[in-house]
Amino acid sequence: MNNFIFQNPTKLVFGKGTIEHISTEIPANKKVFVTFGGGSVKTNGVYQQVKRALTGKDHIEFWGIEPNPTVETLRKAIAIVKEENCDFILAVGGGSVIDGSKLIAAAALIEEDAWELVKRPSLYRGSLPLASVLTIPATGSEMNPGAVITNSALKEKFSFYSTFPVFSILDPQVAFSLPKYQIACGLTDTFVHVLEQYLTTTNQSPLMDRWAEGILQTIVEVAPKVYGEKPAYDDMATFMLSATMALNGFISMGVTQDWSTHMIGHELSALHNLTHGHTLAIVLKGTMWIMKEEKGDKIIQMGKRVWNIEDSDREKIIEKTIDKCDEFFRSLGLKTRLSENGIGKETIDEIVKRFEKRNVHFGENKTIDSSATRKILEYVL
Amino acid sequence: MNNFIFQNPTKLVFGKGTIEHISTEIPANKKVFVTFGGGSVKTNGVYQQVKRALTGKDHIEFWGIEPNPTVETLRKAIAIVKEENCDFILAVGGGSVIDGSKLIAAAALIEEDAWELVKRPSLYRGSLPLASVLTIPATGSEMNPGAVITNSALKEKFSFYSTFPVFSILDPQVAFSLPKYQIACGLTDTFVHVLEQYLTTTNQSPLMDRWAEGILQTIVEVAPKVYGEKPAYDDMATFMLSATMALNGFISMGVTQDWSTHMIGHELSALHNLTHGHTLAIVLKGTMWIMKEEKGDKIIQMGKRVWNIEDSDREKIIEKTIDKCDEFFRSLGLKTRLSENGIGKETIDEIVKRFEKRNVHFGENKTIDSSATRKILEYVL
Repeated sequence: MNNFIFQNPTKLVFGKGTIEHISTEIPANKKVFVTFGGGSVKTNGVYQQVKRALTGKDHIEFWGIEPNPTVETLRKAIAIVKEENCDFILAVGGGSVIDGSKLIAAAALIEEDAWELVKRPSLYRGSLPLASVLTIPATGSEMNPGAVITNSALKEKFSFYSTFPVFSILDPQVAFSLPKYQIACGLTDTFVHVLEQYLTTTNQSPLMDRWAEGILQTIVEVAPKVYGEKPAYDDMATFMLSATMALNGFISMGVTQDWSTHMIGHELSALHNLTHGHTLAIVLKGTMWIMKEEKGDKIIQMGKRVWNIEDSDREKIIEKTIDKCDEFFRSLGLKTRLSENGIGKETIDEIVKRFEKRNVHFGENKTIDSSATRKILEYVL
Repeated sequence: MNNFIFQNPTKLVFGKGTIEHISTEIPANKKVFVTFGGGSVKTNGVYQQVKRALTGKDHIEFWGIEPNPTVETLRKAIAIVKEENCDFILAVGGGSVIDGSKLIAAAALIEEDAWELVKRPSLYRGSLPLASVLTIPATGSEMNPGAVITNSALKEKFSFYSTFPVFSILDPQVAFSLPKYQIACGLTDTFVHVLEQYLTTTNQSPLMDRWAEGILQTIVEVAPKVYGEKPAYDDMATFMLSATMALNGFISMGVTQDWSTHMIGHELSALHNLTHGHTLAIVLKGTMWIMKEEKGDKIIQMGKRVWNIEDSDREKIIEKTIDKCDEFFRSLGLKTRLSENGIGKETIDEIVKRFEKRNVHFGENKTIDSSATRKILEYVL
């Protein structure tokens, strides 16, 4: 097991009717900058609950943080936060709204442009306190310090690390109004977040393996229920809790990580504005296949423990495990080939060109470069 | 799933050679009160590492916090902390030293006697910041706000809740010098901590079930290695991480808990000064047997998933699961009957009398009263 430092101070307020906790969790005398995405929170009642809980608190609303949040939109928010001297950010939405709000909270404290901050972590000077009301179980952003920001002018998308939310409110009831596609992408995102921390060298931490497998098993079991007709509250709660636990550091203590599926997926959504989880459903089969020598032992462990695959032939277990993951995503209505999503060879060429230019080497063992990326994407064409 | 609030701010610093982090983790200009148990940390090198890391920091040593820490000893420490105006507590030891230090950190801030504070939570006025260097994987006290304090004059033992450690340093190497009996008790303590949060109503949270089972599976796998000759570093690290994760809130989100085995175990160690983990190994078989109707479904789930028991007969799975747990403790050299430990009927009578006087009703469904306690203890006589 590798040495590690773990700390996650976010306070989770989880369950039915918990949005009203905003009123007591935000310290008194704060000027709150409240961020939203589109208008769906107005139709599902979340907006009304948030407003009620903010009664008596000085606050400003900011609308329009888009899926794959763009620095162009966020710059407008940052200007208002500075001008109005807001000193608390409350993000109300899914991972994109929370991610975008992390950049707002950090960029509000510096003079430089927000995209500069994304590209140069050394500019980071801390963040305004940030909290969230989560509306889409998926990214885990509600309990981690990470964010992914898009520059739509440059069609680029990069990770950014700032602060943990002070608190996050998770009321599973808010997820009932989500479109099926969002549920499918959230389940996929959760599943692949776990794999990025799990499909690595074996025997680094038996406990972390069990916990990662525990999330995978839970998601596989609960997916048909929450994706199906009339999911029960408990199933939605299980999905929501699993999504948060998949990317809050709880399953990555002392172990290596990979993240190559995400690296490639980010490029796909930067170029085609696909939903993040959907890009992962497309790329994963390719990364697993191309890295099947490197990660064979762990893929087999997953096949046996998560998919209950039994076979005396090592190669067959690996193939079946990869197929099972792909079938799982397809069972959620996701098209898992590039061509099925109207994406062709020219996108592969563009991504390979970008990776060549950046001279990337990513993945657990830094084995994924531009040419491996070509193989991965051609495999899922 | 029940509504819940979760927050655990403790910073874990885990791995080889991490004790030196003390020097940077304790803020500058603190006057540090350093607590120890007996002298074992002087022979295994921990004391020397701690002293080196404290170079240049104003600090006072306090020795002699005993296993099952007594308020009598802690009162002396509290007097010194007040007199010397110490403003940071560093506990160096196992669960007993950390537990005792939690009472020191809290009682230093009030006028009233420390035992009054244990008995009356309303007296709590916060704590001095507290950190730990853990030397025995077992209680989880390094990452939770709980403590158990003994009054040796009254032969009483009660739980007390104060603050999370600011940071805890876990270097698995320190555990190599532990006596086998301590290892056995630590493994047992970890195992039963999980069961107190797991052997409850089924289907409350499939994810929490998987994570609890994950710790149990890991402990069962790693126990023969760390209890055996020359354990490997990775195995000791797995044990140490499992012990911390077993009682830090990570497996109890949204689910009910039980704690009846602990309630009875505390009385045994109050009356006979047995090591805490050992008392749990004795009591568990009784609580599982007496509650086998109430908890049958969960016992069966455990039997199938943790012990791989297959049987068409429901009663047989329950019996085998209970036996498996008892055999596990005995495989660690622990005598699991009261009589084997020189404890007789008069102790049962005394505990039942105490519970009658306190009119207790504990356990998940408050079904364990003084007469159920008699049945439990007579079953393991």
